Amino acid sequence: MTPHVTTGNPADLAATGAAVKAADRAHVFHSWSAQALIDPLAVAGAEGSYFWDYDGHRYLDFASQLVNTNIGHQHPKVVAAIQEQAARLCTLAPGFAVDVRSEAARLIAERTPGDLDKVFFTNGGAEAVENAVRMARLHTGRQKVLSTYRSYHGATAAAINLTGDPRRWPSDTAAAGVVHFWGPFLYRSPFHATTEAEECERALAHLADTIAFEGPATIAAIILESVPGTAGIMTPPAGYLAGVRELCDRHGIVFVLDEVMSGFGRTGKWFAAQHWDVTPDLITFAKGVNSGYVPLGGVAISAAIAETFATRPYPGGLTYSGHPLACAAAVATINTMEEEGVVEHAAHLGANVIGPALTEIAERHPSVGEVRGLGAFWALELVRDKETREPLVPYNAAGADNAPMAEFAAACKASGLWPFVNMNRTHVVPPCNITEAEAKEGLALLDEALTVADRHTTSA
Amino acid sequence: MTPHVTTGNPADLAATGAAVKAADRAHVFHSWSAQALIDPLAVAGAEGSYFWDYDGHRYLDFASQLVNTNIGHQHPKVVAAIQEQAARLCTLAPGFAVDVRSEAARLIAERTPGDLDKVFFTNGGAEAVENAVRMARLHTGRQKVLSTYRSYHGATAAAINLTGDPRRWPSDTAAAGVVHFWGPFLYRSPFHATTEAEECERALAHLADTIAFEGPATIAAIILESVPGTAGIMTPPAGYLAGVRELCDRHGIVFVLDEVMSGFGRTGKWFAAQHWDVTPDLITFAKGVNSGYVPLGGVAISAAIAETFATRPYPGGLTYSGHPLACAAAVATINTMEEEGVVEHAAHLGANVIGPALTEIAERHPSVGEVRGLGAFWALELVRDKETREPLVPYNAAGADNAPMAEFAAACKASGLWPFVNMNRTHVVPPCNITEAEAKEGLALLDEALTVADRHTTSA
Repeated sequence: MTPHVTTGNPADLAATGAAVKAADRAHVFHSWSAQALIDPLAVAGAEGSYFWDYDGHRYLDFASQLVNTNIGHQHPKVVAAIQEQAARLCTLAPGFAVDVRSEAARLIAERTPGDLDKVFFTNGGAEAVENAVRMARLHTGRQKVLSTYRSYHGATAAAINLTGDPRRWPSDTAAAGVVHFWGPFLYRSPFHATTEAEECERALAHLADTIAFEGPATIAAIILESVPGTAGIMTPPAGYLAGVRELCDRHGIVFVLDEVMSGFGRTGKWFAAQHWDVTPDLITFAKGVNSGYVPLGGVAISAAIAETFATRPYPGGLTYSGHPLACAAAVATINTMEEEGVVEHAAHLGANVIGPALTEIAERHPSVGEVRGLGAFWALELVRDKETREPLVPYNAAGADNAPMAEFAAACKASGLWPFVNMNRTHVVPPCNITEAEAKEGLALLDEALTVADRHTTSA
Repeated sequence: MTPHVTTGNPADLAATGAAVKAADRAHVFHSWSAQALIDPLAVAGAEGSYFWDYDGHRYLDFASQLVNTNIGHQHPKVVAAIQEQAARLCTLAPGFAVDVRSEAARLIAERTPGDLDKVFFTNGGAEAVENAVRMARLHTGRQKVLSTYRSYHGATAAAINLTGDPRRWPSDTAAAGVVHFWGPFLYRSPFHATTEAEECERALAHLADTIAFEGPATIAAIILESVPGTAGIMTPPAGYLAGVRELCDRHGIVFVLDEVMSGFGRTGKWFAAQHWDVTPDLITFAKGVNSGYVPLGGVAISAAIAETFATRPYPGGLTYSGHPLACAAAVATINTMEEEGVVEHAAHLGANVIGPALTEIAERHPSVGEVRGLGAFWALELVRDKETREPLVPYNAAGADNAPMAEFAAACKASGLWPFVNMNRTHVVPPCNITEAEAKEGLALLDEALTVADRHTTSA
């Protein structure tokens, strides 16, 4: 599949792009943005690992949009499935049984660990988290939910209050019963640990203490991203998730793993928890389930929690739960990933292409403090000084304080690489089916752009 | 367009239906349900105002699914637009400008009243309400939000806490700053009024008192459904919304109208507020914007509130904000409704077909206490006694207590009519482009099924 750019007279294309942009500025209110200070790129098309604008620029998408196009843009099998389903049945209320909804649920349940065999569908990740929390509270009869700093769980009221990044602050209404604790992160250890094993042990002791002091019998759930995503791809130490599972079992706490970003192949397994053979009680998912071709998310539910709602009505729902078009896209995506070995390919990329290349890049660049990740899910921690590990920009920097990261991102884009940037990090999160050649092309562009970050280090 | 049923060997079809149902029962967790006590109908297909099962039964959809298929099922122009957009570009992150997103926003902004010219897109109605509340709180710097009993605003944490029906109870976490008051409803007047004018005056006085005692300077927003939907289609008295607008202006309170159900033609106008020439500060929408063919919702935003976020980042977002496939469906839906005069048709149906027929039906049936509504948006209040107005079943009845309504619903379904039923009401909410002949067919079936309800009245 050769990526192509939009054909046509360049002047006409540029005029179209300008019109798209003008209507956007007049009428579209953008996420997470100061509306007058943004300058959205008008995108004309996309295919595979690339997208392009109206001015002849093509970008290699090392962000998978918002880490959702796990099978890249416009996969022909998924496009065809959406077109066929559109011709058959676009929408149907959640109360009915419908073939693609049944089949999507079956395919997901087959891939989730343990007895998580029932699926409640939502439109996206935030609603999945909202419903997981509701299930946990009603299942346990308890109110509190514990989540980590350095996390993101979505932007509806319950989800944003669980989030552990600055996006929570403006919406924080001191929601009853949310408690934040610290997860393991050896590079910036909250526990002053020096080895992964020590970090794991101390992180579990910290969580056990937090549970004890909050009151075990008041805690409905602990929610974690299996591998925290936007917060920094901090792969947990080997025994951590199993240790949390054990703490949850000991105290009757529901263990929720948020796999909205880490699920569906991103880490080289269907679900990241499978790297450590851990089975939670609930898994939230979205994004990769159908690569975001149609909005879809959901919660995979253990037998015990499903049983709670066997004869007692579950008090949650939404008009588009199990939307046929979204489910058809999920069926085609999962089947395609299976047929084309996309999950295995992501594992291969991590072990043999991206991981080794990033390790080499880190050695060459004074700005790269740490490389971590797995599969198609990697973070580079950019620092002013490798010794002190001072971040290249302060936490939650804006404006001039954030200039080094803004310059780095601009350098990537100027070279044709679309980066994922958050605080002092850049993530390498391309489509899970990116070819080796494309991955290497992007890694070379990243290597080059990092020289811009290097200029802001103490060694410059 | 002649509705057709799935063709094929009846035994094969029945086997397929059984398999769909079995996979559903094994793996699909349903909204608002006790999972072991439901028996979802397996649906094989749908077209226009009808859908059908695998056993040769066809249903006339007087519920528009969940009051979302305003242009009916499988409208060929919208199906074609989805197929074309799928071939071009399924998904794109919210940060970019893209033609169909710009165009959908423009078409919506053109139809909203006043200066509500910017659109923040979500996946559905609940997220729209979540974001409207967030905007109002940040715009005013205040915390409280007032909403009515007898309302539904969605099932995420902020939205369900604003809701004024029993679905709130299990999830109610005593959310900071939500206050419920009573809206106008002459048939069961909370204010002991005897005329619409008196109800209006007293409802406004009640709201003014509630504002005064809650503290005007603590109130960020008042949110109302322009015409409350699931709660009973209580068309507001002539001066009510204008009176609320005036109270909001007096106290610097943001006025949010929830048009998730009442918008996009349902009442015979693009937005229900336009019946009373009232312009709120924010409008939430979903459902009819693209008939639910692809999940989509959003908030239309006034110039003053948009200005608040011109240089200050708006702290909210979602991966699928302004999803291209959903926006393409909205563009096609709005253009089709315009070309085919669907909004005007809904007004005509209300004034000349459904309204008059329901008035006649009410006269003939002792179980029909009141008929109210407009456009393709009608409620029948079923009662045990027209004099006492005792509801046919108690508020929030379940099991045996709800038997009269369950019997009525079953009679509708047995006759080929799919009804919308909530508590002691049935709503007549067919597609806005249902033909007169189809509407009359459904009204005749409803007439017949009401004899079942009549048996539970004191006159039986």
